[in-house]
Amino acid sequence: MSPDAVPAVAPPSVNHLAAPLVARLVDDAARLRVAVTRDERGVTLVDAGIGARGGVEAGLRVAEICMGGLGEVGLGADARHGWPDWLHVRSSQPVLACLASQYAGWSLAASKEETGGRKFFALGSGPARALATKEALFAELGYRDAADRGVIVLEVDRTPPAVVVDKLLRDCGLEPQGLTIVLTPTTSLAGTTQVVARVLEVALHRAHELKFPLEHIVDGSACAPLPAPCADGVQAMGRTNDAILYGGQVRLTVTGDADAARELAQRLPSTNSSDHGRPFAELFAAAGHDFYRLDGALFAPAEVWVSHLESGRTWHAGRLEMELLRRQWTAPA
Amino acid sequence: MSPDAVPAVAPPSVNHLAAPLVARLVDDAARLRVAVTRDERGVTLVDAGIGARGGVEAGLRVAEICMGGLGEVGLGADARHGWPDWLHVRSSQPVLACLASQYAGWSLAASKEETGGRKFFALGSGPARALATKEALFAELGYRDAADRGVIVLEVDRTPPAVVVDKLLRDCGLEPQGLTIVLTPTTSLAGTTQVVARVLEVALHRAHELKFPLEHIVDGSACAPLPAPCADGVQAMGRTNDAILYGGQVRLTVTGDADAARELAQRLPSTNSSDHGRPFAELFAAAGHDFYRLDGALFAPAEVWVSHLESGRTWHAGRLEMELLRRQWTAPA
Amino acid sequence: MSPDAVPAVAPPSVNHLAAPLVARLVDDAARLRVAVTRDERGVTLVDAGIGARGGVEAGLRVAEICMGGLGEVGLGADARHGWPDWLHVRSSQPVLACLASQYAGWSLAASKEETGGRKFFALGSGPARALATKEALFAELGYRDAADRGVIVLEVDRTPPAVVVDKLLRDCGLEPQGLTIVLTPTTSLAGTTQVVARVLEVALHRAHELKFPLEHIVDGSACAPLPAPCADGVQAMGRTNDAILYGGQVRLTVTGDADAARELAQRLPSTNSSDHGRPFAELFAAAGHDFYRLDGALFAPAEVWVSHLESGRTWHAGRLEMELLRRQWTAPA
Repeated sequence: MSPDAVPAVAPPSVNHLAAPLVARLVDDAARLRVAVTRDERGVTLVDAGIGARGGVEAGLRVAEICMGGLGEVGLGADARHGWPDWLHVRSSQPVLACLASQYAGWSLAASKEETGGRKFFALGSGPARALATKEALFAELGYRDAADRGVIVLEVDRTPPAVVVDKLLRDCGLEPQGLTIVLTPTTSLAGTTQVVARVLEVALHRAHELKFPLEHIVDGSACAPLPAPCADGVQAMGRTNDAILYGGQVRLTVTGDADAARELAQRLPSTNSSDHGRPFAELFAAAGHDFYRLDGALFAPAEVWVSHLESGRTWHAGRLEMELLRRQWTAPA
Repeated sequence: MSPDAVPAVAPPSVNHLAAPLVARLVDDAARLRVAVTRDERGVTLVDAGIGARGGVEAGLRVAEICMGGLGEVGLGADARHGWPDWLHVRSSQPVLACLASQYAGWSLAASKEETGGRKFFALGSGPARALATKEALFAELGYRDAADRGVIVLEVDRTPPAVVVDKLLRDCGLEPQGLTIVLTPTTSLAGTTQVVARVLEVALHRAHELKFPLEHIVDGSACAPLPAPCADGVQAMGRTNDAILYGGQVRLTVTGDADAARELAQRLPSTNSSDHGRPFAELFAAAGHDFYRLDGALFAPAEVWVSHLESGRTWHAGRLEMELLRRQWTAPA
Repeated sequence: MSPDAVPAVAPPSVNHLAAPLVARLVDDAARLRVAVTRDERGVTLVDAGIGARGGVEAGLRVAEICMGGLGEVGLGADARHGWPDWLHVRSSQPVLACLASQYAGWSLAASKEETGGRKFFALGSGPARALATKEALFAELGYRDAADRGVIVLEVDRTPPAVVVDKLLRDCGLEPQGLTIVLTPTTSLAGTTQVVARVLEVALHRAHELKFPLEHIVDGSACAPLPAPCADGVQAMGRTNDAILYGGQVRLTVTGDADAARELAQRLPSTNSSDHGRPFAELFAAAGHDFYRLDGALFAPAEVWVSHLESGRTWHAGRLEMELLRRQWTAPA
């Protein structure tokens, strides 16, 4: 019996798997220095870096929640290449963990009129995306979650307005008591941590853009250096991007056509981009702060290994640019 | 009071300690992509790579089950020596974990007549060996488990025939409801993972062959690179062996005679073998596919440290052969 | 709302957080090879290396207990710089974990008259210190725990005399049933492990001596090589110190003044000491075995990174002296 002949098993529910992790985050709020509140309707809000201090530990927890309980995120403190902390990420369900859950793909916007104040914009990430399935990606994934609770992560520096919370409840089909919203600005420790923990997801996303069949990606692991956050939002975003583009190492294990696997390895790393070699913040400024003018090929890990199950071959491409990172991130004391 | 004067404590039951890990493996079947069935008698079968896809996560779980709950197995995704994934193994009860439980030492065979079809052969590993104690090794270890449930791991590509399951139940003294059989072919991700996780066990087994007193080995840790599996069984077996023989690093902490400790370090690594330096699959072919014609000294980790408690000395011997592994395992994309 | 504007949350109780870890240590006594007894009053004693063998696993558990459940301690078996085992330590509450709990700062002495035999001396470490708050440090920390149970770790080679146990109960305000005393001589595997796991604490303690504002230290991680213990007490102590002074790598994340952060990085590593470069045991002998004649600047990690939240800068100083450690610790087999 070949793997393809296995009777279809109901896929795991990313929100169901994340629920105990969310409960632990809330229970451990004091030690994690996150602030948990409920709004007037009963929606749970976890502030992991706006008014609350948060920390790396909170970020690791949020990262595993973001992967729908289908990934493991840890920190290795063994300095390598002159940098002290490295995140390790692993999943044996990388497509569900990274694309159906972790990817920041749900656009949540509110106008001044709707908020009665400032405009609001966030890209929602995490398990609740799979309840709403508002993104075209879900049709491709053929995945839809139907849990009675959900959790969404927003990389923002303020509480979402009522109109956005209403939209979340409506699109996810949740009662207020069933929804948890985690807030992690990139400028915070938890925010930086959970964004760099997207190193595997960035590879999955790029593989998807390269039209590699997602159902052929069966396992994945990754590593990236954890920079310090920065009070300046653009610099903070630059660092988390650079951590992945120039410090990210990813291994994907795939099945199917061997040539497709080799080509994936070849085309995956950020070295394929003509923008490769310049810090993200600099490129972003040069592009007039327009994310969509940047070369999509840059948004990829620095170095990759693609292992192919049938042939047992592993193709290797790309390289770290640690000198660039150290120059950006450190100074002699 | 010296350690030897401590009143004997009942040793831990490897099957009892493994039971909650087995329960979690079964509960998490969907997310681990393993298939759990019960045969007509009520024996639980976990397919971790025959019809089911399985994955690295399933392999890590099986590895900890195989060590009878007395070892920890993890994956570090920090690329070292040009290879992305490394398994870490640790035990503070290495003799029980590795030799009384993890070692694949129980020969389970059935003839064509007995199966009514193809011959069956497997080397059983894991906690249930310590219930049956069919191997001479158990008399030396002075260890016998008496739990009312048990788990055995078989590195095979098909379900064991009824006659083998009968034998398992009989020799282990278990009711069918108490037995779990985990199936992990070497050609699968879970299989490759759980075999490479034997890196510490390989060192223990070799120490035993070198007649080092097992009761003097008190702690152990190890590391080895995780190759891609391969659809070809001989190649797959070659890779898991090479991972240990040329990429395995082991530290044993021992007590007793200092000279014996030094000599263990000297004689332990695979560099002691005249076959050292050639890939396992090549040697296996040259030996006419007869495992027992290969030099036993080759089946050992590449590099070892032996720490001696009384003197505080650590002897170091052997070396990695990563160039050999990279040449076998990788290609530029 | 800035982090400073957050309403004060009750800080976590280090003894309350450690309690489930202590319960697991006791439950797992057989597999960890620690011996658990109760004295006539009902105080729990855990022998992790006097009469009992203990092990690295027991040491890792004791280390996390010592950090009051606010830190994570693990072992990486990936040989680096020619040494096989490295401890990883992390905390998002480093001041509470390391200074309010883990630091061995509570002097517990009993005279010959009081013991009716040999003098007793130990430096108590771990959560129970925060119940007694006998040290001036606690006023500075503004932290006092009020749990109804407590755990103290003593780095000694014999059971504390009744007069010391009485003092512990009285000063901590505990009923005998509420107190657990863990005994880990430096000469044991568990002892060596839990002492080297103080690598982050050593950095915190040094930062305090350098008068860096503790409330500005918000996160921390560290790594250090795990030596073999040694039956000779002074050599054993020398090794654990050398592991940190010459092999310890620490990252602190701080807030507040940027110049203070830079200066902390500059002044923190052990390279600032005129004694730097000589093994601890040699320096200790030269100082007539008087700890207080040694240069305080030496008691610091080898290499540090200080990340500053507001500027996003990371300052780096110090360096490993692995050649010194390898020369002290290893010999070719």
